[in-house]
Amino acid sequence: MIFPKVALIGMGLIASSVAHATRWKKLAGSVAGFDRDAEVRETAREIGLVDTVCDSLAEVVRDADLVMLCVPVGAMGAVAAEIAPHLKSGAIVTDTGSVKQAVVEAVGPHIPEGVHFIPGHPLAGTEQSGPRSGFATLFVNRWWLLTPSEETEPQALALLRAYLEGFGASVDTMDAPHHDITLAVTSHCPHLIAYTMVGVADHVRRVSHQEIIKYSASGFRDFTRIAASDPTMWRDVFLTNKEATLDILGRFAEELFVLQRAIRTGDGEMLHEYFTRTRAIRRGIIDAGQDTDAPDFGRQPKPSETM
Amino acid sequence: MIFPKVALIGMGLIASSVAHATRWKKLAGSVAGFDRDAEVRETAREIGLVDTVCDSLAEVVRDADLVMLCVPVGAMGAVAAEIAPHLKSGAIVTDTGSVKQAVVEAVGPHIPEGVHFIPGHPLAGTEQSGPRSGFATLFVNRWWLLTPSEETEPQALALLRAYLEGFGASVDTMDAPHHDITLAVTSHCPHLIAYTMVGVADHVRRVSHQEIIKYSASGFRDFTRIAASDPTMWRDVFLTNKEATLDILGRFAEELFVLQRAIRTGDGEMLHEYFTRTRAIRRGIIDAGQDTDAPDFGRQPKPSETM
Repeated sequence: MIFPKVALIGMGLIASSVAHATRWKKLAGSVAGFDRDAEVRETAREIGLVDTVCDSLAEVVRDADLVMLCVPVGAMGAVAAEIAPHLKSGAIVTDTGSVKQAVVEAVGPHIPEGVHFIPGHPLAGTEQSGPRSGFATLFVNRWWLLTPSEETEPQALALLRAYLEGFGASVDTMDAPHHDITLAVTSHCPHLIAYTMVGVADHVRRVSHQEIIKYSASGFRDFTRIAASDPTMWRDVFLTNKEATLDILGRFAEELFVLQRAIRTGDGEMLHEYFTRTRAIRRGIIDAGQDTDAPDFGRQPKPSETM
Repeated sequence: MIFPKVALIGMGLIASSVAHATRWKKLAGSVAGFDRDAEVRETAREIGLVDTVCDSLAEVVRDADLVMLCVPVGAMGAVAAEIAPHLKSGAIVTDTGSVKQAVVEAVGPHIPEGVHFIPGHPLAGTEQSGPRSGFATLFVNRWWLLTPSEETEPQALALLRAYLEGFGASVDTMDAPHHDITLAVTSHCPHLIAYTMVGVADHVRRVSHQEIIKYSASGFRDFTRIAASDPTMWRDVFLTNKEATLDILGRFAEELFVLQRAIRTGDGEMLHEYFTRTRAIRRGIIDAGQDTDAPDFGRQPKPSETM
């Protein structure tokens, strides 16, 4: 047991996975949960997601040793303001938002003296959401990034790290601005681009929706998976990581035009060279254990004997 | 048995999967194969991929009832010219290229009187290539599109259809131009966009390659998978489906600018509405059986009991 009492605020995919993992690995004496949505609280009670489902923020954080804010980035500041007077001295507050500078600015000022605020971000998720979508192994072999400041107490950081490592996650620390540009490249822009491609497909009149859906296996469906993520979460990501996202999107548009031009002018050599380079990056990801090299993500049933 | 002799030209992912599926379901009396690359022929012999590995195009198509061209689109015309004098009267010639109008133009003129040419395209694949990458179930529940002309004999079409359905594939027919615009939306543009995003990540100096690889699980790795496909095949796709691809890419760039502008001006309502619409398309794909709704493609280990 690392924390006598853990409080989860928001009970969607991440919080419900944290609840499962905490209980599975016996990392806390008790887990309390709150969600602003009464229906979510009802579901959480029904499935026994946590030990106590609370009906107010004041109640859920009372005596908690760790408070985890698992709400959209845009909602963090208001939650922090409301829980601040009820936080126990010596408690650790962390969050799971996909953007870190905006959270530091929104939450930081509300944190009382004697409480440790260590922003965090688990690089794990699925395209599903809600209290029923969580599962205990979501964080296994995934990164959980923390962005402590220079004032963060090493003791508090070590405790939080041990808790997250208890889920099977690997913990890395970096500063908040570097987090935000890194995630703009590896996550935020890929998501915006996927949303855009799905939107384009939705508008093309010469190809019916039914055809797009029928023939999606040839590339498009991978885009729809990430474009099916929670709309509120993603709206907040783009609004709060505006600068880094626009920087990377600008480069993307430039690069796209270069490839478009190569297609228009029939520059096969340039295209071949470009497509060859991208294979090496894929290889690196597999070697780093961040994906499987099973064909097609292992989607296809592979017979034990293919003759 | 549907065809006494099947000839496969090119022995990469698609042909080797066709070989496995044909033998698994006993759809042909014998399967012969040829590849211009001597090393590929050697591997095919070593793993017993087909009944006979031939060392020339003339030999592989001799007496074949079905000849399947499984080479990059840009190589189809030259192969067709070379096999034409050796084709058996009444034989069926088909192909597996990702673009159909260019293949009709390159191959069609070489097909002798009395031979049936029915272009085709299996919507199946993985990011792997070569004679060892095939497996018998690659086509199960996947579409195999055929683009017959008005002159195609119904009897020949029915035979080819029965053969492909024998793999577990669903066969649809459409005209070649409609095929090419449909695939530009569902496959060709998504691939180009994925290549572009991977290229951008490769160029960003503020984030190291190691970091991009480490933190790729949050969206980027899905792009790298499709950007790891065979460079020659994809070069040929873009060069031969130029018009449709550039049309869709133009719309994509427009749409991307609209979203970029919403981010810049902080229009959260527009972003939320946009992201909500894309979820419905994803739902349609799952309902149509073209993907699993297991979280994250079923990549994550899900314990049988999550407490």
